[in-house]
Amino acid sequence: MAGSRILSGVQPSGKLHLGNYFGMMKPALEMQEEGEAYLFIADYHALTTVHDAARLREWTRDVALDFLACGLDPERTAFYRQSDVPEVHELAWLLSVVTPMGLLERCHSYKDKTARGVTPSHGLFAYPVLMAADILCVQSDKVPVGRDQKQHVEVTRDVAAKFNHQFGEVFRLPAPEIRDSVAVVPGIDGKKMSKTYGNTLDIFGDEKTLKKNVMRIVTDSAPLEAPKDPDTCNLFALYRLLAAGDETEALAERYRAGGLGYGTVKKDLLERIQAYFAPMRARREELARDPEAVEAVLARGAARAREEARRTLSRAREAVGLPPGAIGREDTP
Amino acid sequence: MAGSRILSGVQPSGKLHLGNYFGMMKPALEMQEEGEAYLFIADYHALTTVHDAARLREWTRDVALDFLACGLDPERTAFYRQSDVPEVHELAWLLSVVTPMGLLERCHSYKDKTARGVTPSHGLFAYPVLMAADILCVQSDKVPVGRDQKQHVEVTRDVAAKFNHQFGEVFRLPAPEIRDSVAVVPGIDGKKMSKTYGNTLDIFGDEKTLKKNVMRIVTDSAPLEAPKDPDTCNLFALYRLLAAGDETEALAERYRAGGLGYGTVKKDLLERIQAYFAPMRARREELARDPEAVEAVLARGAARAREEARRTLSRAREAVGLPPGAIGREDTP
Repeated sequence: MAGSRILSGVQPSGKLHLGNYFGMMKPALEMQEEGEAYLFIADYHALTTVHDAARLREWTRDVALDFLACGLDPERTAFYRQSDVPEVHELAWLLSVVTPMGLLERCHSYKDKTARGVTPSHGLFAYPVLMAADILCVQSDKVPVGRDQKQHVEVTRDVAAKFNHQFGEVFRLPAPEIRDSVAVVPGIDGKKMSKTYGNTLDIFGDEKTLKKNVMRIVTDSAPLEAPKDPDTCNLFALYRLLAAGDETEALAERYRAGGLGYGTVKKDLLERIQAYFAPMRARREELARDPEAVEAVLARGAARAREEARRTLSRAREAVGLPPGAIGREDTP
Repeated sequence: MAGSRILSGVQPSGKLHLGNYFGMMKPALEMQEEGEAYLFIADYHALTTVHDAARLREWTRDVALDFLACGLDPERTAFYRQSDVPEVHELAWLLSVVTPMGLLERCHSYKDKTARGVTPSHGLFAYPVLMAADILCVQSDKVPVGRDQKQHVEVTRDVAAKFNHQFGEVFRLPAPEIRDSVAVVPGIDGKKMSKTYGNTLDIFGDEKTLKKNVMRIVTDSAPLEAPKDPDTCNLFALYRLLAAGDETEALAERYRAGGLGYGTVKKDLLERIQAYFAPMRARREELARDPEAVEAVLARGAARAREEARRTLSRAREAVGLPPGAIGREDTP
């Protein structure tokens, strides 16, 4: 669907690692090719889990730098902080009055968290309504999500349809775009790479730590001379993310032939990682020295998103019987 | 506590009747004497029950006219529509992330409504969080409420204390001010006067209907000559609201003496009602012809409330780790 509008949000969650990059960031950057892209840093959502102001500020800054360093083009993608579009909360209220409690109570993500013993806050429970407001306020057509988030986009559709039915057509119904092909990136212990497991390869951390961690990647204990299976090897799974198809194929051959030591592959992998991210690292250092330029990018993105959000909100307010705009929205200090 | 700040909200709910006036409006107007008063028309809250745009608009306009006609002094009371201070929703989110679900699940008002078979919306459930935001955003000291709303002010205190503890001192803790002395006004059938029972005496309706309804007020069937008990008589209960102490006493004497017919009391009561509200009716008609003047009053009130709300919100945002203000809050269209 060329020219359609596509939205994604990313929670600030700490240092960027290979798992984030290939699992989340690269697909988000590819949205730029698919249509009119909106990408926001979900700092309001992050508050449901991050209750440390300094950490939230640092992580938010990091995710902005990471995306811009890794190729986000602010001319093509409206890139903004969620907290620069506070209209989403007002819209969330207008949606709340037509959102049945049962719909939220049935959300797996909330049930899973409480089942794991998390003491639930209202923010955690109300999260899908805010997510619906994020999506609907910019009238997005497509929302690329993993399987675990599909239900939340369905909640958005349900609520939008209910609102339209009750008050008149205001919202475009968005469709989830399930990303099944997204790479599962193994961590250094072979489990899925995740901060939770402490098994990450951080992209913009110091080089010594990266080297140490690559050397620690778990392999089997096959001797040097033995033929090896690339398809069950963590090193190979990481290598293929960074190499061209023919290079990957060449390495697979060498695995199967025997005589290739894991130490050699590790050295090669480390060089690949360094080479792949070197230009991004340089770009990131440059951006980090110019926080005002980063703020200017976020301000431009927010202005675009906000214009859409205000237009949508104004129509929604009018539909329910409120004045279309709050008095003094523009001119009060 | 002289000079303290005092806040109250009133839901737009249709034509003003004697029960509203003496039960809710007169006490709200008396806030003007007690401190720095904020009074808002709770149109966001009304959306939890009113899903008809034309009706919400009409009722909101009515409640503004009613209060101004009945003596609200906009120089002393900041009088505004809740929907002109949309910052409350953003603040409600910041409160939501520290509001335990259990606290909301225990709210009687919600439990009562669902027990009566209302299919609950998320808006109904989240109502106490929005009410907390209304109160906290203007840093109110006192919140006059009936017994049924006391728990919601306690929720506000709990949530504000939790936020202050987690993120630093941002909110003043408000205290409920329970109004036990508020008159229970009987309707024409003797039950509490309420739109729900269809037993109201509307104040600014047409005079013929008012006359007809006063004549229909239920009394006992004691004969003219019999002595009568003023304390069990609906007519007397209404009369005393409108008359001075010595006049009320004189009427009580006539009840006890016998020889007084209910028809006579009804005629007297009708005249009292007409005389009491005549100046307000005239003022209301005048205001109704000048909607711009009413909007100007609400705009002034909103500007005052909004300035407070923005100051509070900015501190709360900074405390949780968001930028103190959204980019372009002032200058975006």
